Amino acid sequence: MRILSETVADGVREQLFAVGDIPGALWTPDGGDGPRPLVLIGHGGGQHKKGWEVVSRAIPYVRSSGYAVAAIDAPGTGDRPEHPEIRRLVALLDERRAADEPAGQAWPDLCETVAAELVPDWRTVLDALQRLDVVGAHGPVGYYGLSQGGEMGIRLVAQEPRITAAVLGLVASPWLAEAAARITVPVEFVVQWDDTGEPRDGALRLYDALGSAEKTLHANPGSHFRVPMFEIDSSVRFFARHLGVVPESGGR
Amino acid sequence: MRILSETVADGVREQLFAVGDIPGALWTPDGGDGPRPLVLIGHGGGQHKKGWEVVSRAIPYVRSSGYAVAAIDAPGTGDRPEHPEIRRLVALLDERRAADEPAGQAWPDLCETVAAELVPDWRTVLDALQRLDVVGAHGPVGYYGLSQGGEMGIRLVAQEPRITAAVLGLVASPWLAEAAARITVPVEFVVQWDDTGEPRDGALRLYDALGSAEKTLHANPGSHFRVPMFEIDSSVRFFARHLGVVPESGGR
Repeated sequence: MRILSETVADGVREQLFAVGDIPGALWTPDGGDGPRPLVLIGHGGGQHKKGWEVVSRAIPYVRSSGYAVAAIDAPGTGDRPEHPEIRRLVALLDERRAADEPAGQAWPDLCETVAAELVPDWRTVLDALQRLDVVGAHGPVGYYGLSQGGEMGIRLVAQEPRITAAVLGLVASPWLAEAAARITVPVEFVVQWDDTGEPRDGALRLYDALGSAEKTLHANPGSHFRVPMFEIDSSVRFFARHLGVVPESGGR
Repeated sequence: MRILSETVADGVREQLFAVGDIPGALWTPDGGDGPRPLVLIGHGGGQHKKGWEVVSRAIPYVRSSGYAVAAIDAPGTGDRPEHPEIRRLVALLDERRAADEPAGQAWPDLCETVAAELVPDWRTVLDALQRLDVVGAHGPVGYYGLSQGGEMGIRLVAQEPRITAAVLGLVASPWLAEAAARITVPVEFVVQWDDTGEPRDGALRLYDALGSAEKTLHANPGSHFRVPMFEIDSSVRFFARHLGVVPESGGR
């Protein structure tokens, strides 16, 4: 892992890094050292590792719970090079959306193309993060991801035993049912009740398919992008329950 | 209001009271005076004002948030006299359940019979509580009730404008859709995913029917009586968001 930059603001240290050609960001408490729980945050489609949705979760996780929090750019986003096949599929989907046509096979194809690189990348980055003193090899690991971050998260959590708790959601892909059934760790599953792109029926089926003994569904009215702010606080508490909190942190 | 007894334990004062012939319990911080938010807790069927489900919510509401919390016995329960019609309907329902027969009209009849007394009783008791110094006439009021407490709560909250936030749930009664639609205050709606008595489809329809702009659905696996303990903490935070907390209280 190469550290590319380091800045500190409001008690949070932000380090941009690269693991091979995978660009990422790591947030930790300023002055914090020694092992602590780690939360991986998967960003949404068209976003990147430092998008608002990522940072708005990362900062409270660091400040309230003392965690290390990491995000990486998905293929074709942020500081990654252009990805011609992803670019082609996104353009095709944009065209169909503009013409009010169904997405068709382009949507699962896009998910599959992103996942084929991103899921192994996450595992490589997790290896590297666990070699850092500020994370440690044996601490608990959580994953947070909605929308594309949920699509990728269900695949990742299903195959990565180091992840022991996950907030997932804003996803209704029927092809994920089998992976969801392989998940057995506690999950908080987020649904937007009036989400036309990821309709509630499909989302509820995925929740139902989860193999976890503890799985809690949080649904709220409104469209895909209208997840209420209080769900951030809820995720802080979900992770605190399952990953613990660092004693000297702000606490709740 | 007549105060019948007063005890203090762990910083919580418990007063048993009667308003006319309505028996109730009031929990407040020991030594607390002056107005504060009030939460009314509706108990479940066959339970009473001091059942475990009530007390397990009341104590954290007082200790964490400094609230006043009140519960009353439903007709025919706790310190109320026998209620022959309710007794008859409950016996009929028990018989049918034992014979694996559908509940039929006896179930809505029971709900209606209880509500006809309990909803006006709650409003009478709320009048009396708001005359206490430790509650005050102008503070925010919340309602918490699952199962029979949800059945009654939907009716009560729909018609009582002083209640400004409610946790409701474990109820799927189709006859409540119209009352649910009249509710406009924030609601946290609790569903047990494998509840055979109050099936998820009907419960989700009631959630959908709620007229509230802010309504958050919390579903968890398991049967009717298996609401996870972390939902108590979630309700503490829901009320804190909407009713505020008393500054000198434990706080969250």
